Order: sequence, then C-alpha cells, then structure tokens
Amino acid sequence: MTRPPILIELTRGNLVESVHAGHAAICDSSGSVIEGWGDPVTVIYPRSSCKMMQALPLVESGAADAAGLTDAQLALACASHEGAALHADAVRAWLARQGQGEDDLLCGTEMPRDRDLREALIRAGEAPCQVHNNCSGKHAGFLTLTRHLKAGPDYVALDHPVQKAVRSSFEEVTGLESPGYGIDGCSAPNFATTVAGLATAMARFAAAGTGSGARDAAMARLTGAMIAHPDLVAGQGRACTELMRAAGGAAAVKTGAEAVFVAILPRQKLGVALKIVDGGTRAAEAAIAALLVHLGVLAADDPAVLRRVDAPIMNRAGLQVGQVRRAAGFP
Amino acid sequence: MTRPPILIELTRGNLVESVHAGHAAICDSSGSVIEGWGDPVTVIYPRSSCKMMQALPLVESGAADAAGLTDAQLALACASHEGAALHADAVRAWLARQGQGEDDLLCGTEMPRDRDLREALIRAGEAPCQVHNNCSGKHAGFLTLTRHLKAGPDYVALDHPVQKAVRSSFEEVTGLESPGYGIDGCSAPNFATTVAGLATAMARFAAAGTGSGARDAAMARLTGAMIAHPDLVAGQGRACTELMRAAGGAAAVKTGAEAVFVAILPRQKLGVALKIVDGGTRAAEAAIAALLVHLGVLAADDPAVLRRVDAPIMNRAGLQVGQVRRAAGFP
Repeated sequence: MTRPPILIELTRGNLVESVHAGHAAICDSSGSVIEGWGDPVTVIYPRSSCKMMQALPLVESGAADAAGLTDAQLALACASHEGAALHADAVRAWLARQGQGEDDLLCGTEMPRDRDLREALIRAGEAPCQVHNNCSGKHAGFLTLTRHLKAGPDYVALDHPVQKAVRSSFEEVTGLESPGYGIDGCSAPNFATTVAGLATAMARFAAAGTGSGARDAAMARLTGAMIAHPDLVAGQGRACTELMRAAGGAAAVKTGAEAVFVAILPRQKLGVALKIVDGGTRAAEAAIAALLVHLGVLAADDPAVLRRVDAPIMNRAGLQVGQVRRAAGFP
Repeated sequence: MTRPPILIELTRGNLVESVHAGHAAICDSSGSVIEGWGDPVTVIYPRSSCKMMQALPLVESGAADAAGLTDAQLALACASHEGAALHADAVRAWLARQGQGEDDLLCGTEMPRDRDLREALIRAGEAPCQVHNNCSGKHAGFLTLTRHLKAGPDYVALDHPVQKAVRSSFEEVTGLESPGYGIDGCSAPNFATTVAGLATAMARFAAAGTGSGARDAAMARLTGAMIAHPDLVAGQGRACTELMRAAGGAAAVKTGAEAVFVAILPRQKLGVALKIVDGGTRAAEAAIAALLVHLGVLAADDPAVLRRVDAPIMNRAGLQVGQVRRAAGFP
C-alpha cells in the first residue's frame, strides 16, 4: 500500500496530536478520476460501503419485485443500521413475511449500537440476536434472493448463487476483476477493488436512471431507496444518516468498517470513495464531510458537517481541548 | 510530524487491510536512544502514559507519607482504571479518609469501562460519577498534594502549585523543557515532550532505587506500586494489567490516550515509549507487546502477547478473518 497523504488531523493545545492518512477519489461513470488524493489504484476492501452493490442482484434478478419489497426494505438491504427498534422490527417483519426467521440469518449476533435498545436489553437481562446485527438487512436481502433462486441455506458461501451474482455485479460495476476477497464481520465475502474502482461504481449508481435495462433500473432504485430512508441506512446521530439528511437528496452516502466511505451524487453523476489507511472511523467521517462540502453538496457550516470536521474535541468536563480538521492540501 | 514507518498492520483474507505507523524509542537513563523506529524527537502528548510522572510531586514532597498512602493508592494515582468496584470503592475511601468527596474531584464523570459495573448502573438507572472516571486515582493524588500544600481547590489550573510541581518534575525527568501543553480528557494539563524524552524518563524510573534523594526514592516507589498492583493500574482484560502480570515484575507498563504506550524495565534499567500517529489503541497495544517480546521481557507465545499481536481477528460468527501483526522491519 503506497504511503498516502495525511487528510485529517487532530489538534490539542497548540500541537497536532494525531494524524490520519488516506486515499480518496472522485470519479465519473466512465472511470476517469476527476480528483484524487493518494493513490487511486490502491486495493481496499470496501466492507459495508458496497452494500448497494451487494443488493444489486436482489433487485435486477426480479427477486425484490417478486417478494414485493418496498424502498424501505431496500434501504435496509443497503444499511449498516443501529439495531434500533425501527431496524430490528422491520427486519423481523421482512423475514416473517417470507416464512423465515432470525435463525435463517448467518450474520451473527451483535449488541445493538442504538443506546436506548442496548440499555433496554441490559435492563431486561436479554441477549441481542442476529436481527440486531448492523448487517441484518443485507442478510434479509440475501435470503430473499436465495428463496427466489431456490438455492441452499448457506448463502454466504463463496460458491453460493447469491455470492456468485454479487461478485459478478460488483466486478461489472467497478469495471475491475476483484483481486481477492476477505470474510466480513457478518461472514459474507467482501470483494476487494481499488479506491477508484469503488468511486467509479458509485458514479455509475449516480448516473443511473436514464438508461435502460435491469442494471440501470436497479442502481437508480437502490440509490433512491437510500436517499428516501436515511434513518434506515444507519440511525440517529450516525454520519450516514445525518449527512444524507443534510444533503437533501443530493447524495447517498455509506460507511464501511476500517474507515471506508463512499458517496453517490446523482445530480452531478459523480462517485466518491475514500479509505483512511489506519481504519480510523472518525477520520473517514471527517474526510467524507469535507469532500461533500468541496463538491458543493453540503454547506461548510451545516451542523452535520461541523460535528465531524473543523469540529471541536470536548473533554469529560465539557471543555474544548482541540479540533478535528482537514490537513493542509485536503479540501 | 515526520512520517514514521508502519509498525503494525491488519490483514483480512490475502490483503493488508489497514496499517498503523508510529514512532518508538528504547532509551537508557542517560537519554541515549538504544533502539528507535521513526523519529525519536517527535513531540507528542504522553496523555495518561505519564501518570507516574504526575504522581512524583505527591511522593517526593512527603505528601503521600504524611497522608499514609499505601502502594495500592499510589498504583491508583498512576492508573487509567476501569471504574470497576475495586477502583471506585478505593478512590471513595481515599477521599473520605482525607475528609473529601467525589465533589472535590475535577476530572468529570465517565461511564465505567468495566462491563459489570456499567451494566449494573444501567440496570439500577444510576448515572456514573467522577470516581468512575479512569483518572480518578490521579485526581485523588492531586487532592492529597493540594491538602499537603494547603493550596486552593482548582488543582488542575496551570498555575496551581500542584501543576507547577508536576511540570517541574516532568521536565527534570524527561530532561527537556516541555514545548507546550494540552488539556487532557480529565481537565489536567498534559505536558508535551519527545518520544525519546518520554522513554528516557521511563529509563530513569527503571534505574531508580539505588541512588539517594527524594526523587530517586519516589520513582522507585511508584514503579514498585504499579508492578505490585497491575489490577489497580487498569483492570480485567486490559493491556496494562495483562502485560504487567505476564512480565512478572520485569516491567511496569502504562497506556495513554491517542495510542501512547510506555514501559519501565527495572531489571534492564531501560525505558520504552511509543506513539501510533493515528491514535489507534489496538496498534499501540500490539506494538508495546511486540517490543516487550523483543526486549526479552515477555515470551512471544504468552497469551497476553497473543491477544494483541500476531493475534487473530475474529468476526461476529467466531470465524478468523484476519490477523493483527508486526509490519516488516518492526521486531
């Protein structure tokens, strides 16, 4: 991995205390890098930032329509949600409607990130279950496609028809053969690509909706579903939700573990992807906010921006002790 | 800040997914850098890694003896503790014995990191208080010194006798004038120094105990207190506690926020300091474990080491998906 520039830095007192380096690319749908930082051909795992690509086979196969999936359900298929009641209940209902249940999921259990629900579980002495896993919507989508394809239950296996379809869609939309895969936190394969490949894929989602064919329609529908349901894609206070709300339809944004962030900009027909090489989420959130301001999608003084970049660092007594800010040379 | 080498990397599948760069130095008590990575004169905030230096005035002034402080209390003064019952109760008792209470602390409240106590508070519907703050032992020490000096209650002010004494001790032991300070999470000033200055200070703690004078005795006593009470310095499952237990008296180790780690090696009379530039704690823990193995203090196959470096990354379903490992060129 090439040593990329520092994009985000944290100050305390008069010193820079910590720095985050990363790669970022803004691409159009032809795959051209319009603007870049670091090395756009660095290979990364998109992790959850590619959930809209993992949901493509669900939609373009006709499985989503056959199951009568709503835009809310498609937003959940693209989500890394908080495991709040609105997410968990919706996934339970989705599974129940197709005669399935939490036991059919293969994502593993996760304590809900939503504080209210987490504390309610603790007070009730209850353990979290698989619907609370932030990926449970993606997995519900995998199950819907599995049923549609009449395939076997191990839908996260690399040679399962669902994952073969995901890989195929992923490589076509990124425009690159994937050089490898890793197993994600939720046990699904996660296909590697370049930062520019990921940004190009996002630009193709951004440009979709005026062409023809199932792929074009599926990309436009998934982008629209994310933009229509920012609360389902993440949750209260989360970067994806707040930045999408602030963008007012001008961007669908999605985070991935280990500090990946992408944005689909339908009005500009551009895509953005970035990876902070140390996996620091705080810096990925700051960098995507800065790039959305740079691209004119968000106002620099929007509260959703100012909570993430050019943002005060407060200590436990509520004193400002430093700042999260753009490094020199990063917009 | 000079761009330092990558010390720790995380793999997933066949790829390196994330990397952590850092500066590290092994010094002797004369200030010589015995071995280094990155730039040893990089200026950093030690954060909580310098708590044993912040406790020096408490001991060398005679305040600790006058108040009858035990080694357990001195270990708490050097601690970033979990806020578990054993820590919180001990701090409450310490304050009560000197006629003070939680309200005299200025560290701010913090939800205890200890899971049992945190969940007990949630179940009881109780809010955490200042004794749960991981720095409450350090602040209890500041209060003891404040009483001894008959100084005013704002013991975290830069011009308060306690902080003036801390700065003076800090600069003498690091051998460097501090180029600046930041306000820490607990509102105390945190004086900047170089990585080598911090390692040199740790070497001076390591070499203490055979000389004369209050400074020498105070350094030896604080190191001994940390080594005698690894459970009080951090808590169950935490890196400081586990690594000190595994070292069996050969090292006192201490973490600081934003990925600082130090070690005092009394048998070798050496000091270690490191800073991961992105603030990633996982990498600081891996790097200090690797250096303690490199220095012969810990066995490479010690479970406390293998939980932090050359360690499997498990996903939510319990599958191994990658590894935290040393980068090429780092021991």
